[in-house]
Parts: sequence; structure tokens; C-alpha cells
Amino acid sequence: MPEYKAPLRDVKFVLQELLSCESLYQQLGYEEATNDMIEAIMSEAAKFTEQVVAPLNQSGDQQGCKWEDGIVTTPDGFKDAYQQYIDGGWPTLSQSEEFGGQGLPHSLNITVSEMIIGANHSFAMYPGLSHGACATIEAHGTEEQKQTFLPQLVNGNWTGTMCLTEPHCGTDLGMLRTKAELQDDGSYSITGTKIFISSGDHDLSDNIIHIVIARLPGSPAGTKGISLFAVPKMSINDDGSVGERNGVNCGSIEHKMGINGNATCVINFDGAKGYLLGEVNRGLNCMFTFMNAARIGVANEGVGSAEAAFQGALAYAKDRLQMRSLTGPKNPDGPADPIIVHPDVRRMLLTQKTIAEGGRAFVSYLAQLVDIGHRETDAAKRKEVDTKLALLTPIAKAFLSELGFEATSHGVQIFGGHGFIKEWGMEQLMRDTKITCIYEGTTGIQALDLLGRKVLGTQGEILKPFAQEVTVFCQENYDSPAMAEFIKPIMAYAQEWQGLTETIAKKAMSNPDEVGGASVDYLMYSGYVTLAYFWARSAKVAQDKIAEGSDEVDFYQAKIQAAQFYFHRMLPRAKGHAACMVNGVDSMMAMDSDAFQF
Amino acid sequence: MPEYKAPLRDVKFVLQELLSCESLYQQLGYEEATNDMIEAIMSEAAKFTEQVVAPLNQSGDQQGCKWEDGIVTTPDGFKDAYQQYIDGGWPTLSQSEEFGGQGLPHSLNITVSEMIIGANHSFAMYPGLSHGACATIEAHGTEEQKQTFLPQLVNGNWTGTMCLTEPHCGTDLGMLRTKAELQDDGSYSITGTKIFISSGDHDLSDNIIHIVIARLPGSPAGTKGISLFAVPKMSINDDGSVGERNGVNCGSIEHKMGINGNATCVINFDGAKGYLLGEVNRGLNCMFTFMNAARIGVANEGVGSAEAAFQGALAYAKDRLQMRSLTGPKNPDGPADPIIVHPDVRRMLLTQKTIAEGGRAFVSYLAQLVDIGHRETDAAKRKEVDTKLALLTPIAKAFLSELGFEATSHGVQIFGGHGFIKEWGMEQLMRDTKITCIYEGTTGIQALDLLGRKVLGTQGEILKPFAQEVTVFCQENYDSPAMAEFIKPIMAYAQEWQGLTETIAKKAMSNPDEVGGASVDYLMYSGYVTLAYFWARSAKVAQDKIAEGSDEVDFYQAKIQAAQFYFHRMLPRAKGHAACMVNGVDSMMAMDSDAFQF
Repeated sequence: MPEYKAPLRDVKFVLQELLSCESLYQQLGYEEATNDMIEAIMSEAAKFTEQVVAPLNQSGDQQGCKWEDGIVTTPDGFKDAYQQYIDGGWPTLSQSEEFGGQGLPHSLNITVSEMIIGANHSFAMYPGLSHGACATIEAHGTEEQKQTFLPQLVNGNWTGTMCLTEPHCGTDLGMLRTKAELQDDGSYSITGTKIFISSGDHDLSDNIIHIVIARLPGSPAGTKGISLFAVPKMSINDDGSVGERNGVNCGSIEHKMGINGNATCVINFDGAKGYLLGEVNRGLNCMFTFMNAARIGVANEGVGSAEAAFQGALAYAKDRLQMRSLTGPKNPDGPADPIIVHPDVRRMLLTQKTIAEGGRAFVSYLAQLVDIGHRETDAAKRKEVDTKLALLTPIAKAFLSELGFEATSHGVQIFGGHGFIKEWGMEQLMRDTKITCIYEGTTGIQALDLLGRKVLGTQGEILKPFAQEVTVFCQENYDSPAMAEFIKPIMAYAQEWQGLTETIAKKAMSNPDEVGGASVDYLMYSGYVTLAYFWARSAKVAQDKIAEGSDEVDFYQAKIQAAQFYFHRMLPRAKGHAACMVNGVDSMMAMDSDAFQF
Repeated sequence: MPEYKAPLRDVKFVLQELLSCESLYQQLGYEEATNDMIEAIMSEAAKFTEQVVAPLNQSGDQQGCKWEDGIVTTPDGFKDAYQQYIDGGWPTLSQSEEFGGQGLPHSLNITVSEMIIGANHSFAMYPGLSHGACATIEAHGTEEQKQTFLPQLVNGNWTGTMCLTEPHCGTDLGMLRTKAELQDDGSYSITGTKIFISSGDHDLSDNIIHIVIARLPGSPAGTKGISLFAVPKMSINDDGSVGERNGVNCGSIEHKMGINGNATCVINFDGAKGYLLGEVNRGLNCMFTFMNAARIGVANEGVGSAEAAFQGALAYAKDRLQMRSLTGPKNPDGPADPIIVHPDVRRMLLTQKTIAEGGRAFVSYLAQLVDIGHRETDAAKRKEVDTKLALLTPIAKAFLSELGFEATSHGVQIFGGHGFIKEWGMEQLMRDTKITCIYEGTTGIQALDLLGRKVLGTQGEILKPFAQEVTVFCQENYDSPAMAEFIKPIMAYAQEWQGLTETIAKKAMSNPDEVGGASVDYLMYSGYVTLAYFWARSAKVAQDKIAEGSDEVDFYQAKIQAAQFYFHRMLPRAKGHAACMVNGVDSMMAMDSDAFQF
């Protein structure tokens, strides 16, 4: 089982050197968030994740959750670790001071979350959805609701869930059947069955606040008749304390491919008391607050998983002796060379490394945009930030989950036969990470959101602020000979990206199915180009540091080398996606449904 | 859990219509193997796999194998199913009549195997290695050894294994430590530990014949000091009956990601009596007989798994109602359209379908080459066949296992959240199939074998017979307007393939690491082009059948549409691989081993 080590040096690089977070935070009024403070937090987070959370990863997978007599029990050690999570103040990090939070930037919390995910994906999911629940209540709840729910959600004594899916509807939420009926006291009686509820029931917290979509009698059909509710597992007394059981029960837990330490529940609402969030029939809009945060969270899971798989594979590749280098022995005194000398092993390791580090930069950048969105007062700047977030969130969610999964698969592959054996821990990472390509909207759904709703739905307007940022970066570095190997490809790919967008837009005018036919290739293409931008920026920072005479030349040199690998061996994959998508949808749609199988 | 159905119509297409097996078989002297006989066999195999083998797939995964007091027990039902397998005469199908076999072509057996794999990967592995064991003994054993081992291996009362890997060496067999010491009676005493032995111990057969590599005292170091032995689990009496336990014990079984119904064993040889196969120190050469057969077998596992995943996903995609088609409702009376109307779902289904059907053609073609190799008397023709097999075996093994795994991943994805839940059976296919990218030589090892040893090692000579075959096909169809959409791309890609080979060959002269750096991309590129050839041939057959006035126009039309999908949306992926490999190895090798992690 590989030992998880929080990637502190790269976290410092991303937050402080690449994204200059201290100056941004000061500008946004987060005065406390100095570089010293950030390093202290990260160092504590490293200890907590390495020493408390990581040791429960494999045992949690083996033991899984138990569901007996309607009661869910988490694996041994989870309850104690969660208590330490509360005691350490981790749930409060980026929450509003008004409700007991530390009021620190969201982007710091995202980094801490990545460490928890890398250490133990299943554990990370228990507190993982509380943030989205808080954000939703803070944005759409009444003052009374905020006072009722937020202090306990913020301090971690209560956790949150997101209850959307029903047996017959996942993607297509307009079909939902869960009912909400107005009661005399102004609350609602919620009845229906939700499935696939992550952390839906457990023994870690005193209460669970379910954020539930349901339909009022007589509401319009489809997505325009959906309302949003906060439904506590345990009733809440007038003094805010936990009372009797509400009509919320866990009907069973799922047996899954992975994330076995997390309880994925069927939740039955049987006349449960719920509280309307926002306006009637505007629930899906309110839910987007939650979903956008959750989607960045899933992108972060791709990053954390890639990091964990990389660490495991790297240690093994340095240790395992097998065959000689094609260019002559590198370990002449040993019986064979460590497999890290072999180019194809390095290809896989560098693929993992560039996914993890590039993805970290990408996700941290998104989290900074969220911070700016919270604090920025200038409306134009906020709009710019919102537009970038709207564009990049589906890309990050789908691209980083797909590549995160790929990274875990390379982890298994580098271990060879041992990778397939449970004891080594690599196959668990694969099983745990596959879900990231599915939940919070599959890769296909993210791709439709990106290409259909956002890019084509705005006639490409949504691309402009981010494209402008990339263009400015390219212009600034256009004359640097050292940056030419990065700037020229980015400019070429960015232009091709624009061209592909126009080609598909044109085709889609005569056949709307062209959007669905191109969407996943388009998203992956967009992802490779976006990540190239973050790798080019990383290379630039590293070049500058070396030029300034840094005494960490090895570190910065490796950054530049990783960027070169990305541009040589990862970015060109986009060519395959481009070549596929320009061939259009006809060959997908021609076959009659009945002719698929004979 | 999806119900497995043997793909009989496509089997008929591949064997009879595409590969004209009846006339080939007659030509090779397999007089009994008429079309009627083939259809009768396949129909019986379908019944056996659908009714006996498939129902044990999910329960076998859940229950797994047990190891208690050194005894391995297979999951409930496996023993009875294996007995039915023997009673049905399935083990004997393509074995030599001299040893009790039916003397039918190997290519028929491969097709039956694919059905067993599609129905139950773990079960298929028990008899799966007996064929390789038989082939090895038949090729390298003495007459006495053949008479001792083959009749019982052929009838299935005994099974075989392949014992190569040791804890410290998998790929690098030159490092093996298992000892073989000559005894007075001419036998050898074998001592050592082998790991990852598939079907290494179980309760299905009366005896297990381990084909083991070991080293004689004083043998040269490395691969030139390896000898090959047949080591029975149970001693064999002079009359051929099973005697006392030999010094062969199962030390434990592995807990794995998948193929849980198959016992992956640590086998301890403790002064076990073994019989030398072939010459001393020539064991690795003899073992290649086994490995080449096993590698085609693994390619076949990719095909069977893709077929199973496709069948499950297709049934779900027709049944699951979610969202409306972008071009207007297709199921206006229902609450939503079946998801098969959505282009991206079709993309995934057609990807699975073209992998399964194209892969079936590819593997059956290879099996035919094996048949020709066995029976052809003309030395030049045999050489041609051997050359094609040498080239195409690593491509088939790695490319079809990687794409087979991809197909199972699409299966999970099409099911959405349900794909991640064990009960639906899709995640098991993914877990079971991942091993195919690893065992019998990882994708990386196949790629090195292909590019380094075979293509560059022969200065490209090895490419010529297959390239010639493709060229002839292209020339024959060059003037057909209906075939132009297939012929032109194949010619262009084949030319690019040649160019890429030359480019890498040139680079490799100054830096041998260029081979390892390009190898996997080169293999995948080669795979996409090879499969394009089989899809073009399939389209040609379908066009001809329609022109001849077949009454199965729907079937043949679907073949042509699938071919078009392959050329539009799969083959262009090769562009990404080409773009990556031309960028060379420098960006992989530059980073110091210690600089990967900070």
C-alpha cells in the first residue's frame, strides 16, 4: 500500500508562485491569508491527511459500510477521524465568519480537500457535500434558515447531502416524482425516494441536512416545476438542538465498484418535514449553486486521485528492478535496472504527474475565480469571472475526472500484475476514481452543457474572456525564445479550437444532433488546450525563478521538463479528437436502433 | 445483470462470409469442418455458454475462490459446469485426433472460447491455458511425455497452467530462481516459488500439469539458462493414473480487482518431480509456443468482454428513458426518449460494437493463420503465415485488450450511476477485463516486442507480407466507388504507418530509447490501421451480399454503417498517436529520477 504524502512543495508552487494568491487575497480583503498563514495551514493539513485519514483508506475499502435495521455504520476509524476533522477546525476553513467559519478563501479549502481525497476518497466525501449545502442555504435560504442550519453545518457537527436522483431519473430531473405539500406551519411534507445519495446516512455527525428537489402539487411539468428543500434527518427543536427522527430513512446502501467506505444510500422521505429554499418552482436554478461547487469538487477528485496513483507508481518504479535500460545498465551492480529507466514507464509516470500538477493548477485557478466572485464588487469583473467559471467548470469536471481515472489506470499498469492485487492499493484507486466520470453529471452531460448550452448557446461569447486571458499571456511571452516552444503551439491550438467551434456551429444549424455527436471530443480537445495554458504558465514561472537565481533549480527544472512532456506527448492527443469530431455525426445516427444487435 | 447471448449471426458472418472458412478448411484437409458442421457446433456452444456458464458469472465474482488448509475451492457451480464442459467434448474440439481430440480447426475453438469468455471470464480461464499446455507438450515433448500428458489434457480431465512469474521477476524472466536438479531416473527435482498462476490450483480436474520454467545448476545467467518442465500436481503412476501428491502446493490465492472466480495462486514447488520439455537451456524458446497461443487468447478476451459489455449497454440504452432527442421526441407517448437516441450514447455503443465485431474478425483471422501454419506443407507459405502471426500477435494482444477494456468502461458509462453498482454487472466486466492489459505481457511489453524486436529488429521486413495483403485488397477495390470511403483512408494510413516506422528507425539509430518512447503509440496506431483493414473487408462482403440480393439487407446495411463509424470516429484516433510519437523521447528521458517527486 503506497504511503500518501501531501504534495506540499507543489501546493506552494501553485498557490503562491503560479497564482500569486497572497496578493490576490489581500486585494479581496482576506487580510489574514498571508503566505505564512497558508503554509501553516497546509502543513497541518498534510499531517492530518497523512497520519489520520490515509491509514483508513484501504481498511475502509475492505470493510465497507454496513446497513443493519436501517442504521448505517461507517468503517472502523472513520468516526474518530471525522471527530478529529471537526476538532481541527477543518470544516470551518472557508466558511463565513458570521456562521462560525474562519472566513478564509475557498481556494485554500480546495487544496486541503485535494489532500483528503488523495489520502482517502471515501472519507473525503462525507464532509465533501457539506460545503455545497452551506453555499446553497447561504445563497437561497431565509435568515431564519441560515441561523438554523449553517452554524452546525459550518462546524461539521452536521453534514449535508444533495438529493436529486430518483430510480427513474438521473440526468432528466424534469421527471422527478418526489412530492412536497405545504403544511399549516409553512413547512412542507416531503414524500418520495431518492437514490445514489452519497453520504446519505452515516454515524459521523449528529444530523444530516438533505438538500432535496421535489415537486409541489399542480406545479408545471418538467424542470420548471421543481422546488428545493432543506430536509433534516433529525427534527430540529426551536432552540436549534436535535430532536426526534424526521420522516427520513435509509432504505438500503449500494454495493459498488469502489468508494466502499462511503455510504451511497437509498433515502426514503415519508412525510418528512422540509423547508423551502428560495422560490417555489425555481429549485433547479438554486440547485446549480450546489452543482457548480460540486463539479469543481469532482474535478478536484480527479487531481487528488492522480496524485495518489502517481505517488504509488513512482515509489514502485524506483524500487522494482526489471530489465536493463536500452541505452546500457543504469544500476550495474544490481541484477537489473529500476523500471523508471524505461521510457514507457516514464511516459506513464509523466502522464500521471502532468495530470496531477497541471490539474492542481487548473482547479486552484477555478477556486480563485470563486473567491473573486464572492468578494469582487465591480460588476463587470464579476461577470467576467462568472463567464470563465461557466465555461471552465464542465471542462474541469469531465476532463480531469477522465484523466484522473487514466492516471489511476497507469498506476495499476506500472505495478504490472501487482497492480491488479488488492494489497498494493493501486486497483482501489482505479475503482474509487471511476465514479468521478459519472456522478454530478457524466462526461457526456458535461460535454453537452459545454458545447450545446454554453458555447453554442451564447454564439461563442462564453469563450471570449478566457480566450482573451490566454491571448494576453501569449502576447506577453511571444518574444521570449525560451517560451516559444509553449506559446506557438498554444496559439495554433487556440486557433484550431476556434475553427472547430465554428465548424460544429455551422453543422448544428442544419442538424442539432451534430452537437451531441461532437460534444465529448470537443470537451476533451478543450481540456487539453486549457491544461496546456496552465503548463505554459507553470513553465514561465519556473524559468523566471531559475533566472532569478533560485536555489531550487532542480525543482524548477523538473517543472519545465514536465511542461515539455505535456506539450510533446499529451497535448497532441487533441489532434485525434479534432480528427474524429470533424467527421460529424452521420455515421452515429444512421443505424436503426434495432440493427445494433443481430 | 445483462443476459449473455452468443453472437451467432456475427460469428457466421466472420467465419463463413468474411473469412470463407469452409473452403480454407477443405483446402487444409479439415474435411469435416463444413459450414453445416460449424453452425451446429456454434449453436451448441451458444446453448452451453448462455445456459450453463453465464449464470455463474456474477455469483462467481461475489463468492470468489476459497483457499483453506492449502485446498482451493472454486465458486459454487463451477465444478458442475466444468464437468458439463468435459461431457460436451468441448476441450477436445481442436485437439489432435491422435490424443483423443476431434481434430477440428483451431479457429473454431477460438470462437467457442470467445463465447465462454463473454459469458464468464473467470470460468473461461480454467480450461483456457490447457490448450497452450497441450501445444507446448505436443511441440516439444518426447513421445512418452505426449502419451503421458496429452490424452488427459485433451479430454479435460486434467488442466494446464503456465508458471513463469516469480516474486522478483515477471517481465524479466532471466532473473528467475526456481531450481531444477537432475535425478537418477532422468526426471528433475523442481524447487521454487511461482506467483500469479492463473488456475494454479482448483477442484475442477483430477490433475494439473504445470508448465514451469526453471534453471539448472551451472546454467548460463539470464534467459539463455532457462529450461522448461512439465510438473504435475499429482504424481502420475506408470499406468498413467493419478498417484500421490507431488511436491506442488498452493501457498495462497490472491485477492484481486477482478476475475475473482478464478484462482490466482502462489505455487510452491518443493522438490517436485518434473519432466524436461525440449532441450536444456532452450526453455524460453519452447515457452514462446505457449505464450503466442496465450496472447491470441488474451486478445480474444478483449473481444469477448467488449461483446458482453456491448450487449448489456445496448439493452439498457433501448430501455432507459431519459431526456428528449435534440431533433425532437422519438418516443412521444413516453415520458422521455430511450437514451439510444442520443448521439453520445450511440458513439459509445458503436465504439463497443466495432471493437467487438472488428476484433472478432481480427482474432479469427489470426486463428486461421494458426490453422494454416499447422497444415500447410509449402514452406514459403508457412513462412508468410508465421511472419504475419509474429507481427500481428502483439498488436492483437495489446490493442484488443486496451480497446476491450475501453468497451467495458463505456458499458459502465452508458448505465450512468447504475453502471457503478455491482448488481447491474457492468462494473464486473471492467474489473475482470483490466487484467488483459497486464497478463501474458503488459501493453508496454507487447509494444516493445512489436516495434523493437520485430519491426526494427527485421528492418521492417516483418511488415511486408501483411502490408502486401492489404495492398492487394486495396488494389482489388480501388475502382469501386462504394469502397472508396474505406480504401482511400487505408492507403493513406498505411503509407503514414510506413513513414512513421522509418522516422522512428532513424531516430533509434542514435538513441535506442526512442524505441521505448514510441512503442505504445506505435502499437496503438498499428492496431487502428489493422482493424480498419478488417472493417473495410467486412464492408466489402456486406456490399456484395446486398448486391447479390440477400434477404438480410438490414444486417449487411448495419455492417456497412458500423464500418463507416469506425472510419469516421475510431480510425482518426491514430492521428493523436502519430502526433505524440513523432515528438520523440527527449521529454521523457530528461527528468532525473529523483526530480519526479518533490
